[in-house]
Amino acid sequence: MNKILFAVDPVASVADEALEWGAGLIVTHHPLYLRGTTTVAADTVKGALIHRLIRNDIALYTAHTNADVADPGVSDALARAVGLSGELRPLRPAPDDPHRGLGRVGELDTPLTLQEFADQAARGLPRTAWGLRVAGDPSLLVRTVAVSGGAGDSLLDTVHGADVFLTADLRHHPASEFMQSGAAGAGPALIDAAHWATEWPWLPQAAELLTSGLAAKGISVETRVSETVTDAWTTTAQCEE
Amino acid sequence: MNKILFAVDPVASVADEALEWGAGLIVTHHPLYLRGTTTVAADTVKGALIHRLIRNDIALYTAHTNADVADPGVSDALARAVGLSGELRPLRPAPDDPHRGLGRVGELDTPLTLQEFADQAARGLPRTAWGLRVAGDPSLLVRTVAVSGGAGDSLLDTVHGADVFLTADLRHHPASEFMQSGAAGAGPALIDAAHWATEWPWLPQAAELLTSGLAAKGISVETRVSETVTDAWTTTAQCEE
Amino acid sequence: MNKILFAVDPVASVADEALEWGAGLIVTHHPLYLRGTTTVAADTVKGALIHRLIRNDIALYTAHTNADVADPGVSDALARAVGLSGELRPLRPAPDDPHRGLGRVGELDTPLTLQEFADQAARGLPRTAWGLRVAGDPSLLVRTVAVSGGAGDSLLDTVHGADVFLTADLRHHPASEFMQSGAAGAGPALIDAAHWATEWPWLPQAAELLTSGLAAKGISVETRVSETVTDAWTTTAQCEE
Amino acid sequence: MNKILFAVDPVASVADEALEWGAGLIVTHHPLYLRGTTTVAADTVKGALIHRLIRNDIALYTAHTNADVADPGVSDALARAVGLSGELRPLRPAPDDPHRGLGRVGELDTPLTLQEFADQAARGLPRTAWGLRVAGDPSLLVRTVAVSGGAGDSLLDTVHGADVFLTADLRHHPASEFMQSGAAGAGPALIDAAHWATEWPWLPQAAELLTSGLAAKGISVETRVSETVTDAWTTTAQCEE
Amino acid sequence: MNKILFAVDPVASVADEALEWGAGLIVTHHPLYLRGTTTVAADTVKGALIHRLIRNDIALYTAHTNADVADPGVSDALARAVGLSGELRPLRPAPDDPHRGLGRVGELDTPLTLQEFADQAARGLPRTAWGLRVAGDPSLLVRTVAVSGGAGDSLLDTVHGADVFLTADLRHHPASEFMQSGAAGAGPALIDAAHWATEWPWLPQAAELLTSGLAAKGISVETRVSETVTDAWTTTAQCEE
Amino acid sequence: MNKILFAVDPVASVADEALEWGAGLIVTHHPLYLRGTTTVAADTVKGALIHRLIRNDIALYTAHTNADVADPGVSDALARAVGLSGELRPLRPAPDDPHRGLGRVGELDTPLTLQEFADQAARGLPRTAWGLRVAGDPSLLVRTVAVSGGAGDSLLDTVHGADVFLTADLRHHPASEFMQSGAAGAGPALIDAAHWATEWPWLPQAAELLTSGLAAKGISVETRVSETVTDAWTTTAQCEE
Repeated sequence: MNKILFAVDPVASVADEALEWGAGLIVTHHPLYLRGTTTVAADTVKGALIHRLIRNDIALYTAHTNADVADPGVSDALARAVGLSGELRPLRPAPDDPHRGLGRVGELDTPLTLQEFADQAARGLPRTAWGLRVAGDPSLLVRTVAVSGGAGDSLLDTVHGADVFLTADLRHHPASEFMQSGAAGAGPALIDAAHWATEWPWLPQAAELLTSGLAAKGISVETRVSETVTDAWTTTAQCEE
Repeated sequence: MNKILFAVDPVASVADEALEWGAGLIVTHHPLYLRGTTTVAADTVKGALIHRLIRNDIALYTAHTNADVADPGVSDALARAVGLSGELRPLRPAPDDPHRGLGRVGELDTPLTLQEFADQAARGLPRTAWGLRVAGDPSLLVRTVAVSGGAGDSLLDTVHGADVFLTADLRHHPASEFMQSGAAGAGPALIDAAHWATEWPWLPQAAELLTSGLAAKGISVETRVSETVTDAWTTTAQCEE
Repeated sequence: MNKILFAVDPVASVADEALEWGAGLIVTHHPLYLRGTTTVAADTVKGALIHRLIRNDIALYTAHTNADVADPGVSDALARAVGLSGELRPLRPAPDDPHRGLGRVGELDTPLTLQEFADQAARGLPRTAWGLRVAGDPSLLVRTVAVSGGAGDSLLDTVHGADVFLTADLRHHPASEFMQSGAAGAGPALIDAAHWATEWPWLPQAAELLTSGLAAKGISVETRVSETVTDAWTTTAQCEE
Repeated sequence: MNKILFAVDPVASVADEALEWGAGLIVTHHPLYLRGTTTVAADTVKGALIHRLIRNDIALYTAHTNADVADPGVSDALARAVGLSGELRPLRPAPDDPHRGLGRVGELDTPLTLQEFADQAARGLPRTAWGLRVAGDPSLLVRTVAVSGGAGDSLLDTVHGADVFLTADLRHHPASEFMQSGAAGAGPALIDAAHWATEWPWLPQAAELLTSGLAAKGISVETRVSETVTDAWTTTAQCEE
Repeated sequence: MNKILFAVDPVASVADEALEWGAGLIVTHHPLYLRGTTTVAADTVKGALIHRLIRNDIALYTAHTNADVADPGVSDALARAVGLSGELRPLRPAPDDPHRGLGRVGELDTPLTLQEFADQAARGLPRTAWGLRVAGDPSLLVRTVAVSGGAGDSLLDTVHGADVFLTADLRHHPASEFMQSGAAGAGPALIDAAHWATEWPWLPQAAELLTSGLAAKGISVETRVSETVTDAWTTTAQCEE
Repeated sequence: MNKILFAVDPVASVADEALEWGAGLIVTHHPLYLRGTTTVAADTVKGALIHRLIRNDIALYTAHTNADVADPGVSDALARAVGLSGELRPLRPAPDDPHRGLGRVGELDTPLTLQEFADQAARGLPRTAWGLRVAGDPSLLVRTVAVSGGAGDSLLDTVHGADVFLTADLRHHPASEFMQSGAAGAGPALIDAAHWATEWPWLPQAAELLTSGLAAKGISVETRVSETVTDAWTTTAQCEE
């Protein structure tokens, strides 16, 4: 088991990659059975994956909400990926440790317009078919940036001091109500990226931490970060203007 | 009150339009206080809207879930907008009436590839900054089409017989799990459009029904369908390939 | 907005008074929407009030449970009104401050019979059509007095050391069970007054606090305490003995 | 056990009466342990009553909500007591029987003013220290009368067609909101009587039904209706006008 | 997969037997994950079983509550095993089918004493270390017998017409309260057997039904009923009298 | 009331004994109405007991969960009865006192095999018809012993460090899953005794504490510990091997 594959989602295409490469362990961010199961029957999608992994001696390890709140964790890696190089603070600190918690907020070295920052974020994140969606005036000057890997709607009430909040899975009503509230004053802009893309930056960070941690114990492993895109959206359509 | 404005969302920009045009009534699809309120204070976003409407003698009427399940209703209008001209059935029929209910499913006159259908849908719906997101093989042949205006994740388990399901507000986990399930067999593709865009087609339909209904009673009104885009996302960003 | 009207209930007759006097603000103890609302439609009683206040530029501010537990608060004013001039303690102290909390208890300077105390309380409170109802032996000697403005049944288990408990909205079962428990020993008597009458004494106190607080900031306002009786009961009937 | 005492409340003074008269059974409307108990210890009020009844061979039988909805039941007796001689309908019919249910509504033979009707009701009900409280214009003409024995606030939404609703245990907020709603149109007036007084008229009716029912089986019993007032309020106080 | 092993519990010793015999399928009465799981990790007891079965190509099928209520089902087989040869009725019939449901009740051809019937039941059921526990007078005459395979405490209120109720997993409070209730009249006796022993008789019945059902479709399978005792209790201790 | 009878269960046979002996008070471990009651009617089993006790001037006092967690309490007495003479610690310490809590764990002076320990426990506990049931290898060496009087399944997750856990009312699924978990490593064995037998040892301890406590106040009482077996199971049956 000295080959370890890192990926966001435990899905068939990731298992294909593990098998082909000869991985003995897959580390994913998302659990296979987040809400539990009473069966792993081979005629279910997830059961089939279980059978395939067991038959091929591939273990599966999941680091989900513990990786979200770790220091450094999922949102630290995201913050670095979109260009925040300075100090970072959690958006919702853990009750028992102010350095851990959900989301991160920090400052850009140089202010950018919202459009410039969105373009920079797009370059820093892995590519998906649809990229990023931006809400707010493209010419708004952005300095303080809040980010949260994965679905971030529960953190909307923590970002009032930021100029922009980048996260994923924002739906119409929360995004619209948030922008209406800000319209009156100078509230933060929003950027919505693919859930997968916002969590992917954690993979190289986790691979590095594991490799060096094991090396310190004299154990040598080979790691690989999956580049398989597991965002569901594969293409787009748009009418002419 | 003989000027009536139709819009999806009861927001400030829609109130601006009503005021400018001299509307006496705004009919919206979304309610202002979906989860209730204990205050309409003028220093809240929604309270400010209430004050403004009352001071300017503009009434507000909401047709939400009743419009969703009506026959014809929100999803009928959506189905027509994306090119379904034949008979439509509800995806989840109302317990007491098989012709009413949530969502609609119907057949295209001529099969199209998934990409062709997505392009056709994009042309049929009002434009937003980001258009449509498509999951599935672009060359998949599509004939049976399911649609549901607004957030449609609760209907994912009703669309197994369709070739594609077009709706809004689909997030990573439901969309990804749905596509994984379908991968094994020949499950439906998904198209995600702006919540606002999927419900907008109902507005002209509702305006026409109200005008003719009142005319039959000898009442003459002037109606207008708002073209203000109330989708939150105003621009996009994408890295180069 | 330099004329401020104080009242217990935000009802039509109070709005009449505010309009006639030219108030710019009404401060009430009871909120308009205690349990929340999804509509302020003009064809509802409370919505009509909202429309009327907004059209006439009259603001509405509510101080409900914060006024109940304040020091001094609603029950302090009630205690003074029924003749307690010495030190007062809360019946149920706030967890974080022993001087704040629900209800008050204190000592009469001179003991009175229950009937004498009830007569004194009746003189100290604003008049309603039905006055006060008294449970217990009229000749019982009363020294320690517990009071709570508004519905006080939830405080019945806190008054065991008092000789009498004066509050409002006591119903048959709680009052009857409480008196049965006391019958065995020397438990407290009960006095039930109009909910409105027990909270009214707070109005002059609140008006005075606001006037002097604003004066200290150099702001001059005119205040008025509404004498409109908003107790529902307008008359009584009784058979001859 | 051929002497049976009927009373509203199972309290000490009723047990006194039963003991003195030599009753073998007390039939009450209210249960002793409505919310259940884990102890009948003699140092609790209700436990002491249990001990006393058992030691003196007095049984206790309760007819509570079954008597409320019976035909004839508690509200029929109340309706007759306040002067309704014609046909009566339930306010909230039982799902399985339109002649049974909570509350009753009927017509006066001759219209009366609200004050005249309240005086008539006061004469028809047993006397308490405080009589009846009336909300509404005393000169309002009353013909259709709704009544419900005991606490009737849950029936306020069923009495819209009546001119007056007589019940018990009405508190400030329900009574006030009900009267505000009616103020706009021609809504019903309210009369609030003692809970005990509104249920007492059922006692002679129940005694009569039991006596004749047993007589039909050849069993002769002696019944007595307790005239002990178990309303908690023993006197009143009022300031001079 | 033409060798099928039937067992009550999906545990390690049953997997041993399946492996040794070369079974392709195990059919058990109890599910492996009755309350669901989020992991099948190999370092958990149940996960280790999952890995072992998958690696050895052994499928697992569970027939739990559907087998309990079937006609014939688990309690039919139990009834026959303890000597009931006549007609059987469910103790708690299924709402939609009076012949299906939980538990069974029937008549012995010849009355036995309670002790004689317990001895007969012990001979009819598979042996466990502790046998049967009996509550009631050993000389009580028994004719009507109620049985329910597995934990039967929820059926105690359905067996009033029987002379004895044989089931499993009865604890002190339900058994004691049940026997106290019966003591006054002529209530049923109780017999408590091993949960495993009461459900085992269903195995040969199920094996027979499956074999003949498949044979009718031209499919030939070999079945075997596991005799591994999976009752937890392996021995007993008792002080001398 | 100077004669006090101690027993585990408040049942008819214990009342018989109290009556015969002339007790003025029964102290039991189990409450009569653990889940509450709304009636003590004489035609219910428990109501009949209430009537009988009151008519015969016998009081009933219950020490249930307070006795369970006391120091010394129910499980201390049980630990001594099965042969633990050294220091004892709670299995689940009370949040506010590490010396009180549920269950006890301690060390045997000399290691015994599981069978030897079970035999010793059987001799130390009062006799029931069925004795003790043992799960685990009879030759396992036992030194650390966990015990809990009464139903102990909720403590199964606290006994991992022990060699054996003796308690009562263990059912098939918890016992079986617990033994499966242990099978892999060296997990604790289980012993299941009668609920009554595991709590009985507390009775002499409680009688002694009460007698000496009252003697210290100059009050002399006579106590007796009931030897009536209130375990429901009166006999057993077993097939020949």
